Order: sequence, then C-alpha cells, then structure tokens
Amino acid sequence: MARNRGAALLLLALLLAVAGEAQDAQDQLPPRPLVIQLPTEEKRAEGADEAGTELRCASWRTAGEANNLAPWAAVPKNCVPHVRAYLTGPAYRSDLDLVAREASAYARAAAPPAAAQAAWVFDIDETLLSNLPYYAQHGYGLELFDHREFDRWVETGEAPAIPSSLRLYREVRDLGFKTFLLTGRTEAHEAVTVDNLRRQGFHHWDKLILRAAADREKTATDYKSEKRKEMEAEGYKILGNSGDQWSDLLGYSMSARSFKLPNPMYYIP
Amino acid sequence: MARNRGAALLLLALLLAVAGEAQDAQDQLPPRPLVIQLPTEEKRAEGADEAGTELRCASWRTAGEANNLAPWAAVPKNCVPHVRAYLTGPAYRSDLDLVAREASAYARAAAPPAAAQAAWVFDIDETLLSNLPYYAQHGYGLELFDHREFDRWVETGEAPAIPSSLRLYREVRDLGFKTFLLTGRTEAHEAVTVDNLRRQGFHHWDKLILRAAADREKTATDYKSEKRKEMEAEGYKILGNSGDQWSDLLGYSMSARSFKLPNPMYYIP
Repeated sequence: MARNRGAALLLLALLLAVAGEAQDAQDQLPPRPLVIQLPTEEKRAEGADEAGTELRCASWRTAGEANNLAPWAAVPKNCVPHVRAYLTGPAYRSDLDLVAREASAYARAAAPPAAAQAAWVFDIDETLLSNLPYYAQHGYGLELFDHREFDRWVETGEAPAIPSSLRLYREVRDLGFKTFLLTGRTEAHEAVTVDNLRRQGFHHWDKLILRAAADREKTATDYKSEKRKEMEAEGYKILGNSGDQWSDLLGYSMSARSFKLPNPMYYIP
Repeated sequence: MARNRGAALLLLALLLAVAGEAQDAQDQLPPRPLVIQLPTEEKRAEGADEAGTELRCASWRTAGEANNLAPWAAVPKNCVPHVRAYLTGPAYRSDLDLVAREASAYARAAAPPAAAQAAWVFDIDETLLSNLPYYAQHGYGLELFDHREFDRWVETGEAPAIPSSLRLYREVRDLGFKTFLLTGRTEAHEAVTVDNLRRQGFHHWDKLILRAAADREKTATDYKSEKRKEMEAEGYKILGNSGDQWSDLLGYSMSARSFKLPNPMYYIP
C-alpha cells in the first residue's frame, strides 16, 4: 500500500511537472490568439448592414444638426438604436458640453457693460430642461408626437436641467445679460414651467415668454422671430441665442450668434 | 509491480474520468469568460484619454457643422487623427452622399417651370471639387493655410470631383435650374478652374463668378452675399445653395434652402 501510494504520488508529481512546464512555456509565449469564429455569409451581410446603418444614421443625425434635412415627423425606424445609443451614451453629453463651452467663451467676450440692454435668449425644452425621461418611454423619437401624452409629462414638472445649460445660464446672467426664456410651451403651462425651472435651479430670468392663443397656428420660426423683434423694439440687443431647433434660431431679428444644441429626437418647423 | 501498475492505471483512469467530467461540464456551461487583463493605471488613463479625445473631437466636428464654433484657424492638434480618420474612412463619403440626396429630393420638389429664372448656387472647393489630395499632404487642416502652396495645387488643375456633387449638379441642371458657380478663387485662376471643372465632368454652367481684385478684402460672407444680391437684381430666384462653409450660405440674399457639405479641415469667415 505504501508503494502503491508512492507510485501514485510519483505519477501525480510527474503529471504536475508536465503541467508546470506547459504553464511555464505558456508564460513565455505571447498570449494565445483567440480563435475568431468567421461569420457565416448571412452573419457577414448582417454585420455589413449594421455598419452601413450605423454610418447612415450618424450621417442623418449630423445632417439634422447642420440643418440639411427636410422637415421630418419621426426618427427613421432603423435609426432608433443609433439615436438611443447616442442619447444614453457619452456623446450627447459631450456635444452639449462643447456647445455650452463655446457659448460661454463667446458670452465672456461679448459681455455687456452694466446697464446695457444686451440679451440672451434661451429656449426651454431640450435646451434648459431635458425631456429625455419622457422620450425614453416613447421610442426616442420613433413615435409620432402625441400632444396629450407630452402635456401630461410637462404637467408633472419633473423635467431635469441640462447641467451644461444651467451653468451657462448662470454665467450669462452673472455677466450682465438680460435673460429671456422663449418657449413653444403654451401659457396654460406657465405655472408648472416656472415651478419646474426653479426646482431645477433656474432663477431670476428677465422674461418668460410662452405661446398665447394667438400664436397657436404660427410656426415656431415665425412665433419666435416675432417675439425677438418685440425685444428689439423694446431696445434690447440680442447677442446670444441657445436652442435645440433651427426654428429657435432662424427667421428674422436673429441673434448676433446662435448656438444649436443637439437634438435627434424631434423636429419643429 | 503488477499491482503498482494497476494502481497507477487506476489513478490515471480516475484523473482522466475527472478531467472528462470537467470537460463535459464545460461543454454544458456557457463559454468560459476570458480572463480580462485589467489595464494598469497608466494604461487605463491612456485608454480613457483616447476615448475622451475621440469623443471631444467628434463633438468639435459636429459643432462645426452646426455653426457653433468661433472662427478657427487650424484643426486642434489632438483632433488631427480624428479628422484624418473621418476624411479617409467611409463617414465623410456617407455624409456627402446624404446631403446630396437631401438636396436632390428638394430640387425635384422645387423644380422650376421651363424658362423660369430659378437658380442654384454651387461653391467649388470642397463642394464640387475636392482638395483632399492637397490637405492629405498638409496635415488635414493642422497646418495654417498657406496661400502660395495652395495656389500651386490649384494651378495643377487636378482636383477631383466629389462624386455625389457631380450627380447633384447634373440633376439640378437637367431639372431646369440655372447653375451659378460662386467661388472664393480669384479671377487669376479662371482658366485653370474652368479646365479642372470640365475635365471632372462639370459642364454648361450659366455663370462662373470668381473674386475680382475689388473683392479681395471682403469676407466670403460679404462677397458671396453681394453676388447673390446681384443675381436677384437680375431677376433670378435662388432656390438652392450648396457649400461647405457657412460663409457660402449665410449673410443676405440667402437661398430658399441651403445645403452645408461637411468640412472639418478649414474655416472661412
């Protein structure tokens, strides 16, 4: 029994020694390459398709930011994964931050003397406040806009601040700009909007302008241009304008400089 | 010895059985996760840095397309790899193609009746013709613009057509638009420009407008606005405008619709 055990231990020792050498040899070799499983034809086509879709959706999103797209009612269905990944990943935040930094640098350079009538216009939705919690529940722009559903969300007053916009807003105010909040929200939502803004840290704006009944049929471009024109008529000089829609920025009585915040979820004419 | 051998064989059989069972168990388990080698602090910082740089450079490029950047003289040094990868990979081509398709859809919808004075304005450099071969030799926008070097390139007359722009140009002409080529190139380069355009397949434009000596000190925005205003004064209605610079598109006498082609290499005010 003692010899049996001895033989067994010897064998074990041998096996361990062989295993050990193999381990040593492995330690000296470069890491073994993974065996890459080549995709089947079908998978390869799918992969190429996916890469093509990703490329086209990135182009679509960039074209929207450059105002190259015709008016669109919903995010193209095959671009929803791209839009979701963009909004929930670091890229959206990075884009927002960069635009705010550019606006901040400009604001500091253009800072008005005390008592000047220099104004900065801010849009609200997707500019100061984010409706991402709502759109996350509604296909990130895939679903056609539903006024009633969206109104219910607005009425919760729970839209979070966009952090880089809050910083910019405060800086612009501190620099002495008059701040005008110019929103497509209706006057019926004034109280909940004021409440939402304050709870998110926005205070002391000079004017909050909401759509009156008479503005209801106007495009955002027309409505906002009219309101900017009124500001000019009151003696204000609009030096900065921040908005996520081109209809916040274009038209007439345009700002000296405009800042287009990213928004691949919806388009307002 | 026989018993020893017997014991050894028994042990071996046991070991093999255990190994076999382990193999069976492995076959039934999901693939063993790779042991991920955690990066050292240094490597992690480097990787995070690279990802951060890529993110910031993508934001920078997008901000440029959306006209959010202050005038810039050169591509930020740390963004040159991003810009090179963008221009030499599929994304630039994809972006160009998408903008051309949007322009084409609009052109077909806006097509003028015969004998109408509807016009489409095209910029030349980075719009109809590509100077990518030149910029590839000059840091993809990293180097400050060198007029003399660039003039030498222009004078070779070898700038290739941007394929999607050539298709759009032909379609727009076929649809009955008057085509005006409005370029920042000087009149001294008229012959070589005409020659280059023709060899690349551009024909039958209605007017080629180059910078005269009197335009030399003007910004591109002013020079091009003046020229568009002259077109309007001659009775043309500018329905489309394609350019890679915002200074091709903004100012006054703006086109009914403008198409901003991508260009992360240089900025012209």
